[in-house]
Amino acid sequence: MKIGVVGGGAIGLLCSAYLSEKHEVTLYTRGKEQADIIQKNGVKVFGSRNWTAKITAEWTPSYKEEIILIAVKQHHLSTVFEKLKELPPKRIVFLQNGLGHIDRLKEIPHHEAYIGIVEHGALKLSFNTVRHTGIGKISISPFREGKRQIVEDLDINDPLFPISFTEDWKPIVMKKLVANAVINPLTALFGVRNGQLVENSELLFIAQKLFLEICAVLELKKKEELWEYVAEIAKKTRHNRSSMLIDRDNKKKTEIDAILGVLLQKGQQKGIPIHLIEFLYKAIKGLENLEE
Amino acid sequence: MKIGVVGGGAIGLLCSAYLSEKHEVTLYTRGKEQADIIQKNGVKVFGSRNWTAKITAEWTPSYKEEIILIAVKQHHLSTVFEKLKELPPKRIVFLQNGLGHIDRLKEIPHHEAYIGIVEHGALKLSFNTVRHTGIGKISISPFREGKRQIVEDLDINDPLFPISFTEDWKPIVMKKLVANAVINPLTALFGVRNGQLVENSELLFIAQKLFLEICAVLELKKKEELWEYVAEIAKKTRHNRSSMLIDRDNKKKTEIDAILGVLLQKGQQKGIPIHLIEFLYKAIKGLENLEE
Repeated sequence: MKIGVVGGGAIGLLCSAYLSEKHEVTLYTRGKEQADIIQKNGVKVFGSRNWTAKITAEWTPSYKEEIILIAVKQHHLSTVFEKLKELPPKRIVFLQNGLGHIDRLKEIPHHEAYIGIVEHGALKLSFNTVRHTGIGKISISPFREGKRQIVEDLDINDPLFPISFTEDWKPIVMKKLVANAVINPLTALFGVRNGQLVENSELLFIAQKLFLEICAVLELKKKEELWEYVAEIAKKTRHNRSSMLIDRDNKKKTEIDAILGVLLQKGQQKGIPIHLIEFLYKAIKGLENLEE
Repeated sequence: MKIGVVGGGAIGLLCSAYLSEKHEVTLYTRGKEQADIIQKNGVKVFGSRNWTAKITAEWTPSYKEEIILIAVKQHHLSTVFEKLKELPPKRIVFLQNGLGHIDRLKEIPHHEAYIGIVEHGALKLSFNTVRHTGIGKISISPFREGKRQIVEDLDINDPLFPISFTEDWKPIVMKKLVANAVINPLTALFGVRNGQLVENSELLFIAQKLFLEICAVLELKKKEELWEYVAEIAKKTRHNRSSMLIDRDNKKKTEIDAILGVLLQKGQQKGIPIHLIEFLYKAIKGLENLEE
């Protein structure tokens, strides 16, 4: 099957490489330099199994394949959406964190949109090198009506890269959002690895307060179970630096708008106290703006 | 006049050096190494005027002088207080930030206690070198009954090191505490210089929210005037790294207990919302404990 992957970040590289085991993959990068390097040298994967995947790379967004995986960050989605509006109907899988992309899916009603939840750990080491730091899975749910076929079409039957179908995306998107919203901003601000949020008693206190604000804004029940999930992720990835911490270290724009910005807005609309959400949102934004 | 200065930090070095222009100063350090170096090479002052002051340095706390300036950090006060209890009556000037030392002055009623507010900028560069980064003044107030004599006895008539008398210490202690409580924790957490708190719009938003919480806890009026004072200090010292940021960078224990710890406790006792005070207190404590 011909598959397009949009975005040459850690997740884009990882998905391109694994999917190329069985499919004809084209990776769409933002710049020519990255496309040329991948076209010439392939994508190198370390961590899980060390290998090099031969894949096609382009930097002009033709998106001609039948299935398109969107693996760009939330704040690069706008240009992708403009392009998607012009395309003939396709199956499109969105792999973003947060909720920002979901709110915009009504802009492209002619496509069959899917929500993908990526539970892999991945770290981009260079334009064409990715470290697979945590073996997880990808769960795919239809945004509107449910078609299980997409998973059968995509799945490569590799235990290092399982793909499964989920009927309802809301619970898993919410779980992932909560975990991201707790772990990313705090690790980025404090400059600590994920595990410190549950191992250091003061940081744990803060993480739980933030968690409760987030649950209130999203009107989530089963808080004990949900906190267990968040703490479990922090423990499992205890030695990892979160993507937001890595962005801060590299002085790159973070995904704070997609993660806490959305929650801040929802909290303000609903009149729910959001002291820590607001503080952290402003803090990360402020630190980003220092570098301008 | 014979004057003892307790504490070989930035303020202790600065005061020893200037006071030695007219007085016989003994500087009491915590360790033998620092005392030996100062005894041998004097205290070097840079910034305002570059010179070396010859002073006596000791590391055994005899405190035999008639006037004693206490220039140790809040968290080193306990050992000093134990010693002060044993001494015959003296005039003792406390130069600490915050309120922690004031609450303890009832433990030494036989001494004549004074509150000193230091508005100098000073940076310790080595055991016997201090940079005078901002020329300010020292205001001295009697803790109980007022005796202006102390200022006449101490003052060296140097425009770089003015000493003045203030009848009531409360307003200036409060002003200084508020400025410290806003500037120190935020600069330490964000890793920014003082000026960024008023120059970056998101960090300014946070600084003002924190300021309002502090005013509520301390039941302070004239908030506009007080904010102007805090903003003025941040602007005047815009290129400086706060003492708490320097402590964090050096992985040293900060004065967070004396500054925000006291406010957190008062806020909790009074049932006043203290979201940011609590967050910042826990954050700085958590980061200190990472290094243990």
